[in-house]
Amino acid sequence: MRHPSADAILTDDFLLEEVRLGPLVAGEVLVRIRYLSLDPYLANRMRCWEGMDAAWREGIVTGRFVGEVAASADDRFQAGDAVSGAGAWQTWQIIPAGLLQHIDTNTAPVQAWLGALGPSGITAWVGVNRVLCPEPGATVTVSSAAGIVGSIAGQLMQAKGCRVIGIAGGSEKCRWVEEEARFDRCLDHFTQDLAGALTQAAPTGIDRHFENVGSKTLDPILKLMRDGGRVALCGLVAHYQDGGPIALQNFRELLMRAIVLQGFRVADYTADFRVARQELGALLQSGSLAVNETVTVGLEQAPQAYVNMLGGSGLGKHLVRLD
Amino acid sequence: MRHPSADAILTDDFLLEEVRLGPLVAGEVLVRIRYLSLDPYLANRMRCWEGMDAAWREGIVTGRFVGEVAASADDRFQAGDAVSGAGAWQTWQIIPAGLLQHIDTNTAPVQAWLGALGPSGITAWVGVNRVLCPEPGATVTVSSAAGIVGSIAGQLMQAKGCRVIGIAGGSEKCRWVEEEARFDRCLDHFTQDLAGALTQAAPTGIDRHFENVGSKTLDPILKLMRDGGRVALCGLVAHYQDGGPIALQNFRELLMRAIVLQGFRVADYTADFRVARQELGALLQSGSLAVNETVTVGLEQAPQAYVNMLGGSGLGKHLVRLD
Repeated sequence: MRHPSADAILTDDFLLEEVRLGPLVAGEVLVRIRYLSLDPYLANRMRCWEGMDAAWREGIVTGRFVGEVAASADDRFQAGDAVSGAGAWQTWQIIPAGLLQHIDTNTAPVQAWLGALGPSGITAWVGVNRVLCPEPGATVTVSSAAGIVGSIAGQLMQAKGCRVIGIAGGSEKCRWVEEEARFDRCLDHFTQDLAGALTQAAPTGIDRHFENVGSKTLDPILKLMRDGGRVALCGLVAHYQDGGPIALQNFRELLMRAIVLQGFRVADYTADFRVARQELGALLQSGSLAVNETVTVGLEQAPQAYVNMLGGSGLGKHLVRLD
Repeated sequence: MRHPSADAILTDDFLLEEVRLGPLVAGEVLVRIRYLSLDPYLANRMRCWEGMDAAWREGIVTGRFVGEVAASADDRFQAGDAVSGAGAWQTWQIIPAGLLQHIDTNTAPVQAWLGALGPSGITAWVGVNRVLCPEPGATVTVSSAAGIVGSIAGQLMQAKGCRVIGIAGGSEKCRWVEEEARFDRCLDHFTQDLAGALTQAAPTGIDRHFENVGSKTLDPILKLMRDGGRVALCGLVAHYQDGGPIALQNFRELLMRAIVLQGFRVADYTADFRVARQELGALLQSGSLAVNETVTVGLEQAPQAYVNMLGGSGLGKHLVRLD
């Protein structure tokens, strides 16, 4: 892609090119990509051309994928293996074997390894179990409650005996959050005055908050946090299309209520990945974890799908399927 | 005082009245006040008429004081005892004995029990030892570095082997911070571009930050925080005269660098008061803790002294002396 001309990332900033894959050399694997993961955190890398690997610095968009091995020049993989990894948004990929992981498609469909069993689900688990640590009976709030991370975070806290209030945009999302993900409540920030609706929904205040969005949700939440409350700052998707300052009317509450606001990144918690995946897998297999997906088909649709996701359209895990 | 007409607190909002003290009844003590403590956190109570006791709700300004017992109707105190407590800004006071503490004027002058050995010093100790917990060798920053809390916080971290960079307003304050409090550096936000000066002073980034001021100092600091950094939010004095939103250009860094921002209040750490006071007292007696005072004489000068303090004038502990 090119450097975005404006602060916002536009579909015009993306370019679809044909690349010729080199020959498969020892230690490499040829993967046919089945699903690309569309994640909000990529927006900053798209804007700055900064990422974990050199490809980003040439404007090549790189993210998580799942797929299957077509050919392997490494003992650890053979044709037909289901795998996950990170790489350029391509239909086929040659990748060092050390950067691929086997995935078990008997326990869950292949794309679940990008969602509930992948970074999204583990991010929710870490935010709940390593950052918020809510007690049973606590009143907790989750923004972007119909998103894959928010919906799982809320369900994990519901399972711990918390009273969970979600915030989402639009009646379709709120209905799904209340009826399928079974949060106690879901407030619609499109139609409701959030400050007033939160005061009604949490009359004794909020103990823990899982933030995925930004000032629009964080600000009224801060006003209602109880003494010693905690906020897990997981994402700021409302501010990824805009480089301006973030203003909070209720920032002073952090001080007056002795609140801890903690930014976290799932990559800092690799030691927890195994247990998180075990817990999430058990919930998924028992049918007690509701997950939703917004799937777009075809690599050429990926830019529009990405921009739509940043704009808040669609529920659950955002994926591009490559047939 | 009256309700401030504007967001800002003005000297005109204060009113000096003569009150007649009631008779001393059993369990009460008559105290002659020697020093009143001028503390930034009172500003919010002044604006909202909200405080720990009923007096605030009638507009009576209440704060910490030290003084001596003139007469006592309680076994625990006798005339001549040096005491500290909290009460209305008055020259004399009748107060329940249970709300007074004995202070030891052999180890430090009476007003030190409002400063280094009082809530100010203990606040610094808690922020350093219970919130920031810096490692030796860490690069730490302190805003309002010439204030009583900031100057003690920086010296405590210097004693732990940290590299301490202060921020203060004006050359007189910066000179005191570097020469007397012996911080490694003190940056002058009146004359220096803070973002640039901080980058030069902390080329490898900032590990811990002690915030007393607000967005002007916090924002450039956030940009330079290292991964997993911590911010102790102790005060927001630049925003106490203004009820508007607090905007941070670098708020996203909390997420991208996995930073913990923690508001704290000294009153939540009563279990630590004894050890904090012991450590601070030992440092004070050994002459290795530099403290400064800005003393205004006379109750009628208290409003102007308070407004001046909020505006950033003066070094160290702000006191009103009553002769």
